[in-house]
Amino acid sequence: MTPTHPLRDYERVIIGIDPGTNVMGYGVIGVKERKPVMIALGVIHLSKFESHYLRLGRIFERVRSLVEQYLPDEMAIEAPFFGKNVQSMLKLGRAQGVAMAAAISRDIPICEYEPRKIKMAITGNGAASKEQVRQMLIRILALDPDKLLPELDATDALAAALCHYYESSRPVAAPGHGASSWKDFIARNPDRVKGLS
Amino acid sequence: MTPTHPLRDYERVIIGIDPGTNVMGYGVIGVKERKPVMIALGVIHLSKFESHYLRLGRIFERVRSLVEQYLPDEMAIEAPFFGKNVQSMLKLGRAQGVAMAAAISRDIPICEYEPRKIKMAITGNGAASKEQVRQMLIRILALDPDKLLPELDATDALAAALCHYYESSRPVAAPGHGASSWKDFIARNPDRVKGLS
Repeated sequence: MTPTHPLRDYERVIIGIDPGTNVMGYGVIGVKERKPVMIALGVIHLSKFESHYLRLGRIFERVRSLVEQYLPDEMAIEAPFFGKNVQSMLKLGRAQGVAMAAAISRDIPICEYEPRKIKMAITGNGAASKEQVRQMLIRILALDPDKLLPELDATDALAAALCHYYESSRPVAAPGHGASSWKDFIARNPDRVKGLS
Repeated sequence: MTPTHPLRDYERVIIGIDPGTNVMGYGVIGVKERKPVMIALGVIHLSKFESHYLRLGRIFERVRSLVEQYLPDEMAIEAPFFGKNVQSMLKLGRAQGVAMAAAISRDIPICEYEPRKIKMAITGNGAASKEQVRQMLIRILALDPDKLLPELDATDALAAALCHYYESSRPVAAPGHGASSWKDFIARNPDRVKGLS
């Protein structure tokens, strides 16, 4: 799918990433007149690479090229805080790390959200299935179901981006609720911070 | 400490990294007439940054600037495969991931070694203390103990680089013993591979 509008038409562009060691999903949304619109959606297949380093290299290259293509203002990452075992968490941490490095190398702020939090923001149910999240995104963003990839990782990543948009555009955003840092919070809420001229 | 020789004098330059979330150590060795020489040694302090992202950003920037400064041919990383818990492994994985991304973005091959393996290669004892590793490096590389930083992370990183040099310059290097991949193995041992012209 190609962007409906030129990138400059959007007030804000958010890239969502669902990092995995076999498939990495990504979704880009643009905000136009306070309305979120899907700009791009896809997956990066990693299982074809036998070497762990080649996979990490692929993630870095693809995320960097997405960043260069869509010029996002922020990155939202789906980040589970608990995993099966230390081995899988180390691998997941590496995959997240290289994706984050691609954003960091372009000074793009990163926010991370637990899967449960994303599901809650999109469907109102923290225990929703990936399929339910997808169905809700089809409705909210008026996606064409026939043009969607079968991989649910793509819509999961899009959900992370949309969750970040919801969290960060609340009337009163507070740190710990989507704001990546105090700097970010202050930038968005100058009137809520005392002692600054 | 500054390099004794210009970088072009070395047949091979290896950067060793000991990634951590509070302190990251690095050590660079050069090989001149088959003799390893210490080129650089230091630590990246991370605990001053409160935000996890700022720490990751710092690692990426510093490792990339080390890579640009010393133009290493390979990166050796100290990588424990077991940790206390999934939380700490995820954080460690991210720190490793961004350091690896800095190498990957410059097409530098990465080899990882377990701490036990590094200690064994340097001291002959896989259960050696960090202090013993440091003392052995002082002897092998003729380091000036008075000029060394107090942080043992720096010498640990240097030990990773030296371990990689030992492992990869064995008369018969086999995959799984320091060779990062078959491609690497074949490149270094063309006569040992059948069926290639």
